[in-house]
Amino acid sequence: MSSPGISAATDIRTILPPVLITQESLRFLQAHSLLNLSQVSHCLRSDSRAPWTPTMSTTTTTTISPPVATQLTLIPETKIRTGLQARLAARANAHTKSTSGLAPSFLQANLIVLPSRYAADFRDLCARNPVPCPLLADSASPGDFANLRSHLPRVPEGTAIASSLDLRTDCPRFNIYNNSTLTGAGVPDIAAQWTEDHVGFLIGCSYSFETALVAAGLPPRHLVLDRNVPMYRSSIPLNPAGVFTGGTYVVSMRPYRRDDVDKIRAITRRFLPTHGECVAWGWEALARLGIADIDSPQWGDAPLTMDGRPLGSVWGDEDNVPVFWGCGVTPQEAVMRAGLEGVIMGHAPGHMLVLDCTEDQVLP
Amino acid sequence: MSSPGISAATDIRTILPPVLITQESLRFLQAHSLLNLSQVSHCLRSDSRAPWTPTMSTTTTTTISPPVATQLTLIPETKIRTGLQARLAARANAHTKSTSGLAPSFLQANLIVLPSRYAADFRDLCARNPVPCPLLADSASPGDFANLRSHLPRVPEGTAIASSLDLRTDCPRFNIYNNSTLTGAGVPDIAAQWTEDHVGFLIGCSYSFETALVAAGLPPRHLVLDRNVPMYRSSIPLNPAGVFTGGTYVVSMRPYRRDDVDKIRAITRRFLPTHGECVAWGWEALARLGIADIDSPQWGDAPLTMDGRPLGSVWGDEDNVPVFWGCGVTPQEAVMRAGLEGVIMGHAPGHMLVLDCTEDQVLP
Repeated sequence: MSSPGISAATDIRTILPPVLITQESLRFLQAHSLLNLSQVSHCLRSDSRAPWTPTMSTTTTTTISPPVATQLTLIPETKIRTGLQARLAARANAHTKSTSGLAPSFLQANLIVLPSRYAADFRDLCARNPVPCPLLADSASPGDFANLRSHLPRVPEGTAIASSLDLRTDCPRFNIYNNSTLTGAGVPDIAAQWTEDHVGFLIGCSYSFETALVAAGLPPRHLVLDRNVPMYRSSIPLNPAGVFTGGTYVVSMRPYRRDDVDKIRAITRRFLPTHGECVAWGWEALARLGIADIDSPQWGDAPLTMDGRPLGSVWGDEDNVPVFWGCGVTPQEAVMRAGLEGVIMGHAPGHMLVLDCTEDQVLP
Repeated sequence: MSSPGISAATDIRTILPPVLITQESLRFLQAHSLLNLSQVSHCLRSDSRAPWTPTMSTTTTTTISPPVATQLTLIPETKIRTGLQARLAARANAHTKSTSGLAPSFLQANLIVLPSRYAADFRDLCARNPVPCPLLADSASPGDFANLRSHLPRVPEGTAIASSLDLRTDCPRFNIYNNSTLTGAGVPDIAAQWTEDHVGFLIGCSYSFETALVAAGLPPRHLVLDRNVPMYRSSIPLNPAGVFTGGTYVVSMRPYRRDDVDKIRAITRRFLPTHGECVAWGWEALARLGIADIDSPQWGDAPLTMDGRPLGSVWGDEDNVPVFWGCGVTPQEAVMRAGLEGVIMGHAPGHMLVLDCTEDQVLP
């Protein structure tokens, strides 16, 4: 089955099977100015992941237009329109959930915090593996949680990346590792654990190219089905760097029609600082990537066909071709694999740091 | 057998087996200030690759000191001490041979010249695969053979990379491809083929880190044995970019003692713009790299033990561990594999473009 495009007057039921629509998926589409909720808001239930059945008549169509202020009462998170607002909301624990769809067009970043003795090797790891580990910025000096040094070619140093920053509080949720063992999951801040010896690293995140795919009428399947993107440990070796040896790419997967792959590659090509274009595509790519079972991702939710069957059940289908990208889980995996000593911290999965710079500012 | 270090008063016979010493290998060592020829010059023969038997007594030792001017008459190529001198000598066809060991400490580069319609994709290919394809610079605009745009973080734009440059003449020898078929091998210039639509790309070259290994007393085996470095087509996939799909890493190999691998990795780590640290090491790495036969490289000379046996004959020997680096043949292979149309040009293998900037200027 194909992944249909979104255009004005698209019948929403052709995009989102009624039983699978939730507030979260609607919020994503609306946050990206692709859906006017006014015609379907009466159908929404308050529990965000519970399915609902639309009461629209079969002839109702959904107008695609920018959201208007009066609709924001339904979805208060969309009041967060800038990176600074997102960070302040996270700092105040006013926003504690995933940052998916938050502050559209503002760059989001994975956060990894390491003891300074590993910083040079980690910087090398990123420089040598820019597709899965695109380094956007790091602490201006060890211990500095407020000032960043940019590694983006098009953003000047300092506050243009993130003003009034506090890396210890500005992700909605954090994870903490002691000697490579998870000791704190989803904690609200890392102020007590941060020391003068810690260095923060910001790694690009695929949320930005997903926005571009949605805008092009090629929304990623997991967004349409309101699931997490499936992520797989591949056999593609990372270029080793210092203590970081033996790592492999983690890849994210979004199924598309074979005929759309060239378009998908072209759309995501400019997003170099956020993984860029696909690393592999096609059913035959699974063997090359060392992925034994498409239905058993190591992270995220198992991929489905549009009608809810396991993707592996349509193996070989040219309308459901797996397309793979480098994934920001890669550097986290490399860090864990290296068995580092001391306190390591990061954002909790999906709970990113939102920056001040927009995609248009940093992309070619 | 180990790959011994070089230090003052080293017995030269422990480094270079007498039957294998040639002018070329001596020239390399001397060019890198590691050998004073005054004590052995009476032994040199005029044919550069022919072996010779030393007439030194078994107790003679060789003093390691900088070369002096009076010795230069023996090896006129070492009069070329700067990048500009090397380019002018190539332009005048005064130097027509390999640039190995020429103008020590000056950066050397692989040259690839493409029709402009492929330039953006090739730039992406390099940005996404910086270890095998480290892009140093490219034509400031299509058709420009004299001015470069730097991609090195530490060199300002323009003439600091290469002053008075002519990409059409300044490599000692060139290759020419028409519609991806080699139509001119080892030609002295590409002035007739260069058009307003051509874009030149300079890719980092491993000669610089080889110099560092020699200086550290860990000379690459192929230099000691006066052979070409062996290069292998590996199964590590390149991150695809536009028209450049399906490519894989080409890797170069230098055998070392297992105990020296960490030192080797550390020495080559800072050479990010010239492939940087090793990508794999150890006998077990061959399977991971998809290299079936260590004794059958796709390019260069087959590797040998220090006493001249095929390296594969000592499989598993911890004193002869294969160590692999990303190789500048990779982008050439990717270009050939892409089946591009039109006229493509490059340096002839080993006949590099020598730049004005030194390693110390561009390396961290």
